[in-house]
Amino acid sequence: MTCKWLRYFKNDRDRRDLVTCGSAAGIAAAFRAPVGGVLFALETVSSWWRSALLWRAFFTTAMVAVVLRALIDFCKSGKCGLFGKGGLIMFDVTADYVTYHLVDLPPVITLGVFGGILGSLYNFFLDKVLRLYNLISEKGKTYKFLLAATVTVCTSCCLFGLPWIASCKPCPTDTEEACPSIGRSGNFKKFQCGMNEYNDLASLFFNTNDDTIRNLYSAGTDDEFHMSSILVFFAASYFLGIFSYGLALPSGLFVPVLLTGAAYGRLVAMLIGSQSTLDHGLFAVLGSAALLGGSMRMTVSVCVVILELTNNLLMLPLVMLVLLISKVVADAFNTNVYDLLVRLKGFPHLEGYAEPYMRQLSVSDVVTGPLQTFSGIEKVGHIVHVLKTTGHNGFPVVDEPPFSDSPTLYGLILRDHLLVLLRKKDFIRSCTSSTLNASKHFTHDEFAKRGSGKQDRIEDIELSSEELEMFVDLHPFTNKSPYTVLETMSLAKALILFREVGLRHLLVLPKSSKRAPVVGILTRHDFMPEHILGLHPFLFKSRWKKVRLGKLNVTSIL
Amino acid sequence: MTCKWLRYFKNDRDRRDLVTCGSAAGIAAAFRAPVGGVLFALETVSSWWRSALLWRAFFTTAMVAVVLRALIDFCKSGKCGLFGKGGLIMFDVTADYVTYHLVDLPPVITLGVFGGILGSLYNFFLDKVLRLYNLISEKGKTYKFLLAATVTVCTSCCLFGLPWIASCKPCPTDTEEACPSIGRSGNFKKFQCGMNEYNDLASLFFNTNDDTIRNLYSAGTDDEFHMSSILVFFAASYFLGIFSYGLALPSGLFVPVLLTGAAYGRLVAMLIGSQSTLDHGLFAVLGSAALLGGSMRMTVSVCVVILELTNNLLMLPLVMLVLLISKVVADAFNTNVYDLLVRLKGFPHLEGYAEPYMRQLSVSDVVTGPLQTFSGIEKVGHIVHVLKTTGHNGFPVVDEPPFSDSPTLYGLILRDHLLVLLRKKDFIRSCTSSTLNASKHFTHDEFAKRGSGKQDRIEDIELSSEELEMFVDLHPFTNKSPYTVLETMSLAKALILFREVGLRHLLVLPKSSKRAPVVGILTRHDFMPEHILGLHPFLFKSRWKKVRLGKLNVTSIL
Repeated sequence: MTCKWLRYFKNDRDRRDLVTCGSAAGIAAAFRAPVGGVLFALETVSSWWRSALLWRAFFTTAMVAVVLRALIDFCKSGKCGLFGKGGLIMFDVTADYVTYHLVDLPPVITLGVFGGILGSLYNFFLDKVLRLYNLISEKGKTYKFLLAATVTVCTSCCLFGLPWIASCKPCPTDTEEACPSIGRSGNFKKFQCGMNEYNDLASLFFNTNDDTIRNLYSAGTDDEFHMSSILVFFAASYFLGIFSYGLALPSGLFVPVLLTGAAYGRLVAMLIGSQSTLDHGLFAVLGSAALLGGSMRMTVSVCVVILELTNNLLMLPLVMLVLLISKVVADAFNTNVYDLLVRLKGFPHLEGYAEPYMRQLSVSDVVTGPLQTFSGIEKVGHIVHVLKTTGHNGFPVVDEPPFSDSPTLYGLILRDHLLVLLRKKDFIRSCTSSTLNASKHFTHDEFAKRGSGKQDRIEDIELSSEELEMFVDLHPFTNKSPYTVLETMSLAKALILFREVGLRHLLVLPKSSKRAPVVGILTRHDFMPEHILGLHPFLFKSRWKKVRLGKLNVTSIL
Repeated sequence: MTCKWLRYFKNDRDRRDLVTCGSAAGIAAAFRAPVGGVLFALETVSSWWRSALLWRAFFTTAMVAVVLRALIDFCKSGKCGLFGKGGLIMFDVTADYVTYHLVDLPPVITLGVFGGILGSLYNFFLDKVLRLYNLISEKGKTYKFLLAATVTVCTSCCLFGLPWIASCKPCPTDTEEACPSIGRSGNFKKFQCGMNEYNDLASLFFNTNDDTIRNLYSAGTDDEFHMSSILVFFAASYFLGIFSYGLALPSGLFVPVLLTGAAYGRLVAMLIGSQSTLDHGLFAVLGSAALLGGSMRMTVSVCVVILELTNNLLMLPLVMLVLLISKVVADAFNTNVYDLLVRLKGFPHLEGYAEPYMRQLSVSDVVTGPLQTFSGIEKVGHIVHVLKTTGHNGFPVVDEPPFSDSPTLYGLILRDHLLVLLRKKDFIRSCTSSTLNASKHFTHDEFAKRGSGKQDRIEDIELSSEELEMFVDLHPFTNKSPYTVLETMSLAKALILFREVGLRHLLVLPKSSKRAPVVGILTRHDFMPEHILGLHPFLFKSRWKKVRLGKLNVTSIL
């Protein structure tokens, strides 16, 4: 049972908004980046944007920021143990020393280009690995568990084994930190070294991700690491990041990429940093930006998140430049990691833009039949039959004579609402009588969207054969304002409507008035390239993964 | 003559995108806030949002940031005179001393509440003053000039006269700055005071806006100003800001509000700041945020702009809280200042949300006739007649028999394109022959959108009486995929379609197939409250400036 006032949120739109705000809140709390959280949610999560949503997301993260700040304040006195560690800025690299000049541009641009390539490769490998994991997971829970266990063991071996190959480094003399440190945190891990030495690779592996990132970002530590150690650490975190994702374990994308990117930045700094005046710590920050730009392909939100993580506004022009370059480079190869994940999950994710071949197709080229429609007052048996035999979620309601002069489109009714009607069994005896106030028999609650997994199913509703012969008046429960397009509408423009307005069903009207008042219904699936390619084998996939059609007009061929 | 490659931008959509990117670049350069610029442009300028636009705006401001940073570098050596002053952060208030606790919340919330009230009052006064200025300006250029001259003289008198009422303050002993200063800049202006004294009000008035803001934001200067001076300065800048806008002079909104807000913050700090541990300089920053939130009603972008201006990430939770409160308070009174300006200019600005009464109306309730349609092959004389007698910018093209079995909607043709056709005089003799390759006679250039003020007019096109009797084939020039709605569509949902997809024309289709294939055309003007109220006097304006209708169904009344 849900709280009474919560029922206002029990519809698709509010639920979608809540998901967006929730992800904004998550980013805001995890990275202590409230503005970054808003932008992340809008750029990645939400497929379409309303100013009300911006305001709601901002409200959410502002609350998160205030509560977070209050808790940090409260925990500063050590009341919360390890939870209370750290301030509002996670990796503070504020520095007055940040100066960069024209000579720094070539190394930074190089960093961006290779960051883009590595980022798109990251997505490519992740895709392959996830497909493999999906195949294994399908075999059963045991396999799923064994897979997770195997990867965990391999990861542990890797993390503990790799530091053995690194040689010991003598402790720096001018550091304030303990060197070597043996405790649970510290920049200079002793591992298997002597008294005044430390193992740099162990220092990277045997810390939390946060501490390692802080370590890599820190300034004035150009000589703290061997190049070989950084290379090993980069390669290990790159591939472990890919192999850890998608297991039956809690793991993420953002922090691994941030970490790998920091190592990548350090590596580039060691290779070509001598050309530039920049500190290796700043190269690490830029490396994170480059890999995030190459993998996530977000621009504004990554920019703000990095700004909020590092508190270094002076670096902003360089961060923007790196993001720009890595995104452009990576976009030439494949799509961003979130689209990839959504596609792997099998959700019909609509691209934000129309592919070129869609301009050549009209809506009628992709609509597939047969179309199931209901009359305004429909026989219960027919509804049950249609619901049982099709998987459609929306049905046009058409008024036939004698209720109208000619067949007229009345609106669209949802499967969910039909199920509510059938369960209530508020039927009428004949198809001529109308129950204008039928909607009064229902409360708002009954039409509220149920939680996922709690949907009604038609099989669960039992109706007697007498009830199946009765009628139900659909008029009060029909959406009288469905969005519509003409069958001659270009598919590209229909896609824009679908995306921008956030639709689930789009009714297709006939061009000529002599036909039925509605000729089809478009859903997300109808816009999927696989569906369109199935219908139109003339379309071919080009080498560059974009389906192209050239000047050919398919509608005239078919 | 335009560059050849520029013609790709000569259409409505690209031009709109360019305006958005341009404003982003402007904010980025003026406030050295590249990310703030992107968000400002998206939140304020662009009425609808596409991910491609976000990317373009980001690209623009990244370029601005890099060029800006390079120029700052170049100018640092004094090569650019006064131009080269200042770094990437305009009002740097970076401070490790920023600590705030629960006790600071009440003063900050108070600041937000009154900031919201003052912000909405700012908009209210600005509206009244601009209406007055418009009345005066309409009388002619002389009046316009006299108005600007009068206000300028009054402003000068005010700025020079007011410091006389302030008393002198003894110079602080621990400052590094010259006190009193007599040069063109400096925090402690001597004005009419003695050798070791300064006039605090003169120090505020006799500086550039930037220097004054920096002065007000600076920390550790709680005793630099008398409360009376701050009060006078606040009142003066509040009202001078309102009176200066809309004159035939270059003036702005953002900086005056920022300045006034800083003074407001200082004032609040002096009144109730003793309750809190916050520095008066930080109160000034929060005051700017409060007044910006109350007047502009932007959240995320103001937040980022203030962050980029002041480089103080630790303040972010407080800035967000203040923005939240002032926006909520101000929204209870009136609309944001940009909507207000757009409305004053007479542009048909569509709100981002549908008013409650729109849900009660259907599209057919607001469409006004008579509808002008063209046949697929239309007589030139008829086109000229229609273009001369109506001001419409788009016309449905309907194919009548014998070209189709029954009247069929073919598409929508724009006035601009009809004018191009008429000017080219590529006519045909009879209405039965069709010129399928007529579009080949035209180049892309000819249909390119002209610059503002350069549009063709129907009066400029001269046609002989023989030509008027000829025909023109509209098919190749018609947009075959116009967006359409049914006449029963709720007005609220049509508005959402209009807004989200960024339309100019929306064709209204009949519900019953026995009527003409198109029954009307919706433009922005049809969604304006004035238009709807004119058609439906039953709707009444409620006290709270929202037109409400309650449970009444207007469509059933009419």
